[in-house]
Amino acid sequence: MNVTNYHTDTANPIIDPLNKGLGAFQQALPATDVKALNWNLLHEDLSLPTAVLYEERMTHNLQWMQQFVTEYGVKLAPHGKTTMAPKLFAHQLAGGAWGITLATAHQTRVAYQHGVRRVIMANQLVGKQNMAIISDLLADLSFDFCCLVDSADGVDQLGAFFKGRNQKLNVLLELGADGGRTGVRNAEQQTAVLDAIARWPDHIVLAGVELYEGVLKEEADIRSFLQHAVACTKQLAKDGRFAERAARQPVILTGAGSAWYDVVADEFVKTDIGLPLDVVLRPGCYLTHDVGIYRAAQAQIQTRNPIARKMRTELLPALQLWAYVQSIPETGKAIIALGKRDAAFDAGLPLPAAHYRPGSIAPTATPAHWQLTGMMDQHAYLQINAGDDIKVGDMIGFDISHPCLTFDKWRHIAVLNPQHEVVDVIQTFF
Amino acid sequence: MNVTNYHTDTANPIIDPLNKGLGAFQQALPATDVKALNWNLLHEDLSLPTAVLYEERMTHNLQWMQQFVTEYGVKLAPHGKTTMAPKLFAHQLAGGAWGITLATAHQTRVAYQHGVRRVIMANQLVGKQNMAIISDLLADLSFDFCCLVDSADGVDQLGAFFKGRNQKLNVLLELGADGGRTGVRNAEQQTAVLDAIARWPDHIVLAGVELYEGVLKEEADIRSFLQHAVACTKQLAKDGRFAERAARQPVILTGAGSAWYDVVADEFVKTDIGLPLDVVLRPGCYLTHDVGIYRAAQAQIQTRNPIARKMRTELLPALQLWAYVQSIPETGKAIIALGKRDAAFDAGLPLPAAHYRPGSIAPTATPAHWQLTGMMDQHAYLQINAGDDIKVGDMIGFDISHPCLTFDKWRHIAVLNPQHEVVDVIQTFF
Repeated sequence: MNVTNYHTDTANPIIDPLNKGLGAFQQALPATDVKALNWNLLHEDLSLPTAVLYEERMTHNLQWMQQFVTEYGVKLAPHGKTTMAPKLFAHQLAGGAWGITLATAHQTRVAYQHGVRRVIMANQLVGKQNMAIISDLLADLSFDFCCLVDSADGVDQLGAFFKGRNQKLNVLLELGADGGRTGVRNAEQQTAVLDAIARWPDHIVLAGVELYEGVLKEEADIRSFLQHAVACTKQLAKDGRFAERAARQPVILTGAGSAWYDVVADEFVKTDIGLPLDVVLRPGCYLTHDVGIYRAAQAQIQTRNPIARKMRTELLPALQLWAYVQSIPETGKAIIALGKRDAAFDAGLPLPAAHYRPGSIAPTATPAHWQLTGMMDQHAYLQINAGDDIKVGDMIGFDISHPCLTFDKWRHIAVLNPQHEVVDVIQTFF
Repeated sequence: MNVTNYHTDTANPIIDPLNKGLGAFQQALPATDVKALNWNLLHEDLSLPTAVLYEERMTHNLQWMQQFVTEYGVKLAPHGKTTMAPKLFAHQLAGGAWGITLATAHQTRVAYQHGVRRVIMANQLVGKQNMAIISDLLADLSFDFCCLVDSADGVDQLGAFFKGRNQKLNVLLELGADGGRTGVRNAEQQTAVLDAIARWPDHIVLAGVELYEGVLKEEADIRSFLQHAVACTKQLAKDGRFAERAARQPVILTGAGSAWYDVVADEFVKTDIGLPLDVVLRPGCYLTHDVGIYRAAQAQIQTRNPIARKMRTELLPALQLWAYVQSIPETGKAIIALGKRDAAFDAGLPLPAAHYRPGSIAPTATPAHWQLTGMMDQHAYLQINAGDDIKVGDMIGFDISHPCLTFDKWRHIAVLNPQHEVVDVIQTFF
């Protein structure tokens, strides 16, 4: 039995026929060979339900965000937890991203194994095995990594571990908002963390300041939180807390999920701490976008942000699910072979977008009254009207809300060109 | 590059270090080699968050259900969609299960590739590629398969496809309940389906009757639905509709999810149609059980069913999630490194069960007031009280509600003995 770990070729993962949503092939093969199989979604070459990515739309979105951060003069470290697809990380880095953001030690290892060499782990690093994973990666001195700290206990645990490994760990002080998630809430907690960092001068390096503004809902609160982070970063610089970091690399000031990255850019970009400073944004959902929570958030950005307005184009939904009508048992109700096993359902159900009857020329837009009213593990309920032209065996394309929890339902995702031909397959690592 | 499809050794899958929730190893290795690595959950040898299965509890549950169906004299085809873990399918079959139930062509192929030779696909088979998957498996004449039909369109599509392949497909007539999911609702629909089956006499074989009673909520409605299925099956037998099936194999009468299997057994077991008949139950969640929706359902079964009462033992929760306390930023709130990426959240959030501080002797039960109040993609909010003995780096074990949507978050799951040692790793195929 061959035990080679073959999951390490970013550009060309091996795909296995036992994955759902793919076409017919008998033996595992490199993704580059898929194009030659001439699968076309509309020829029913894929086993539905399937998730598909539209290559041109992703490229558009990638360029849109890169242009946005370039015009602002800030850096981009897209949150990789959204897709956990190393091939997409590679596209993002090739497109100009400064690094990749991740949420766990596991995710960081996946990214590293696929060539990513700069990671913000926008989370606390906790536990012996998780620290060991990061420590092993840090044996590669070209690997630029930092994680968050928000408690003295956490810092002391990191200090003891990395002292035992005779290594240095870069950390960002996480600021939190009352009622929010992680992050220090007040000066007392902050001082405790800084004191703890000072206890491990040879092993813990304060590299900057981090926050996640997405726990707040109102722009005014978010701006106030961001201004607090700027003031805090300035004070830490003034107090010499970044001395070691600044001697070697720019200090980091970072925030931004996918809903408020423009406001973060706006508040952070002019920060002068008297030291080299990288302002880093971490949106994750822009690459595929959606037609739910992130379309709504992006519409706000397009309205309020002058640079986004100036760009005159918008992000495009690039991830769809396709599934069959399997039953029309009652007037007004079709059952779709698509379920919670295939799609996010925590921020709105998938939205019917395209209707295709095999053998016809092209998909058509679905009527507005076709809506999902519920999903079970493997089924969805589609509300229709009596007399609608819909039948068992028809294909329905769904846009989605919340890409993160859709990606994690799929191990391989076909990439389509505008002719619905499969031109690539990406692999995910959840 | 080696392109062998190595995912086909049921007893001994290859595990890859890039999967989350495992311990340290450098190269992909056979699951049988894991035991020699001496991982122990309580020694922090696993990267948390992790999902773990308790081997003894699973064995208990497996034997419990097998005893239940044996005492009733019915057959068990556990729903494999719950775990999609071929190694668990193998345990279920070795334990006496008659077959495995699955929901899709993809799932059926996975099961077949891992040695399963009798499958009820408790769903409609729709679409060219899905039919092709099943057709390819049917080339193995030892593969016993049937799927559901509930529309003439569906039957005609199957008839045309399998005629083109010169094959016969066994189908079960699905009965549905008004307001429910799939399945014929009335005599008119049923006649249309039977007429369609009659149009493909050499390619579609009516093998029995199926329903899923779980779309109904009240026992009286469920019993009425089941009695309708019995009457329908008798009438079909009387009308000679099972003639071809009965000449070769028993007719099938099947129902039962994980909440009402006792009532289904009770209503179906005495059915006499004058032909050999297999009554087949299809619960899926009993193997791992939970402490949420299925604990509640099982409590009802233990109360109302005489055979379950007589057995005097209960199903045990056999699947847990373990995660670290990563931050305690506010009095009354701890943040746990566990999120929607790791656990079902559609039928109640995970429930804190065990608290372990690394280095201490053994886990203790968590206080009743420790409850999750929310989950994000990678974080959970744990409500605690001021002064509780909890700190960053502590490990919390969570019981779960809804095993199906927890399993599909994990590609490999460690199996523990009562000493928390990892004795095996199972692989899932979602």
